[in-house]
Parts: sequence; C-alpha cells; structure tokens
Amino acid sequence: MADGETDETTLSFRPVFGPDGLIPAIVTDPASGNVLMFAYMNEKALAETIASGFAHFWSRSRAKLWKKGDESGNLLKVVELRTDCDQDVIWIAAEVQGDGVACHTGARSCFYRRVVQATGNGTPVLEFADLPTPTTPA
Amino acid sequence: MADGETDETTLSFRPVFGPDGLIPAIVTDPASGNVLMFAYMNEKALAETIASGFAHFWSRSRAKLWKKGDESGNLLKVVELRTDCDQDVIWIAAEVQGDGVACHTGARSCFYRRVVQATGNGTPVLEFADLPTPTTPA
Repeated sequence: MADGETDETTLSFRPVFGPDGLIPAIVTDPASGNVLMFAYMNEKALAETIASGFAHFWSRSRAKLWKKGDESGNLLKVVELRTDCDQDVIWIAAEVQGDGVACHTGARSCFYRRVVQATGNGTPVLEFADLPTPTTPA
Repeated sequence: MADGETDETTLSFRPVFGPDGLIPAIVTDPASGNVLMFAYMNEKALAETIASGFAHFWSRSRAKLWKKGDESGNLLKVVELRTDCDQDVIWIAAEVQGDGVACHTGARSCFYRRVVQATGNGTPVLEFADLPTPTTPA
C-alpha cells in the first residue's frame, strides 16, 4: 500500500482468502436488492468472475471450480462487484439468466424461508415467505 | 425431520454451524436491500439475536460474543431473519439505529468500494462508489 493508505482506504484490490483459500461471496438481485445465494470463491473463481463477467465459485462439496448456471443455463451476469472494509468478503449484484432462478431447488432465491418464533413456547421455526420488497430507494 | 421432509422443505430450524462453530450472517438494509455488513454467529449469538431482536455476532478477532452497536449505539434491529436452502447461512434484514452506520469506518455499509478493471492492463482495482439503488420492487 502507498504511504498513508490503510486497509480501509486503499484502492488496491487485495482480497483476503481464509485459511482454506476461500472468500465468502454474497449474490444479490440488482433490481430488488434481495439476497439470491451465498457461496465461496477461491482465487481462481474470483479471477474468472472478474475476467468473464459471470460468477464462478469453488464448490466445497465437489472440490471443483464451478461456473454457476453452466449446466442449468441460470448464469449469474455480474452487474457490480464490491468488497468490504477489510477485503475479506465479496458482494456481487448479478442478473440471473435462463429461468431466473438462483437456487438449486428451483426457487428464485435460496432464502425462501424465514425464521419465526412459534406461538406459545417461542421456539424458532421456519415458514415459507415471499422475498421482501424494498420500501424506499437507497 | 418428519417423514417426507428434506433439508430444503423442512420447517424445522436446524442451523448448520461450520467446523469452527460459526455460521455466516449477511445483514441488509430492509429499505434498499443493500448489503450493510457481513459477520459470523456462533450458536449463542444466533440464539441471542432471535431472542432479543438485535443482531449479535461472534467476533473472531476478539474471540467473544458481540452485540453489534453496544458501544456505538448503532444497534441492528432485526426486521426479518431468513436461512437458505441448506440452513448454513443467515440473512438478516435490519434497521441500523443510532447514527445509521453499520461499518466501523463510519460508512453506512462496509461495501463502499467496488472492483473495476483498470484502463489499459485490466488489473482489478477499487474505487469508492455510492451504494446501488434498486431499480424495481422485488
């Protein structure tokens, strides 16, 4: 970093990968802001995402580089890619191509259930719920 | 799980914590959908978040439970808490109290820089950028 720069102010992109070589990546819908999915990238997946304009991840379960939607056609076309103050998280706003669904279940978003407290004993349970609508522009 | 239920369809809340005992948590602004911050929760932080209605996290650097905003006053009041298809990520929509800033730098969101490709050699660099505005309701 140049003199006087800090992690928070630098314009050098130096993504911080964890001990497992991965950085978490949040994918949102640029139209609504809703979170569509969450996955991990290794250095190569991040580089391919930036170079190609389509989201790539590292599949931990399959231990391989994964171009999201390569089989389903539901590619994630990157509109904007951001990082956070300490550069250890990636946020991508991306348009879902193909059928417009980001979740392997066929749902628009992986976050189709919310946590609510059960009546009576207050135990947290899930319920299916439409995605929220932003109430005001940013 | 009851007969016929799968991880994707169950209404039982069974959050999956990683080998380090943590689950990633995304915090968004319910008004704009913008991502405000990202942190990790352990089982206790998640339980406290649900019970109190205010976001709690596990600070990896300080190795302690952390009620976000407890010192600054910028508490995160939970509007909605969701989980994803395989219940290993938490998404919270939360109103920022106090000064309305979620980042320790004083920025509204930790994601105040975007990644762009430098003119000429195409190297990824950062630039400061206002948060995006959702273009259409969800």
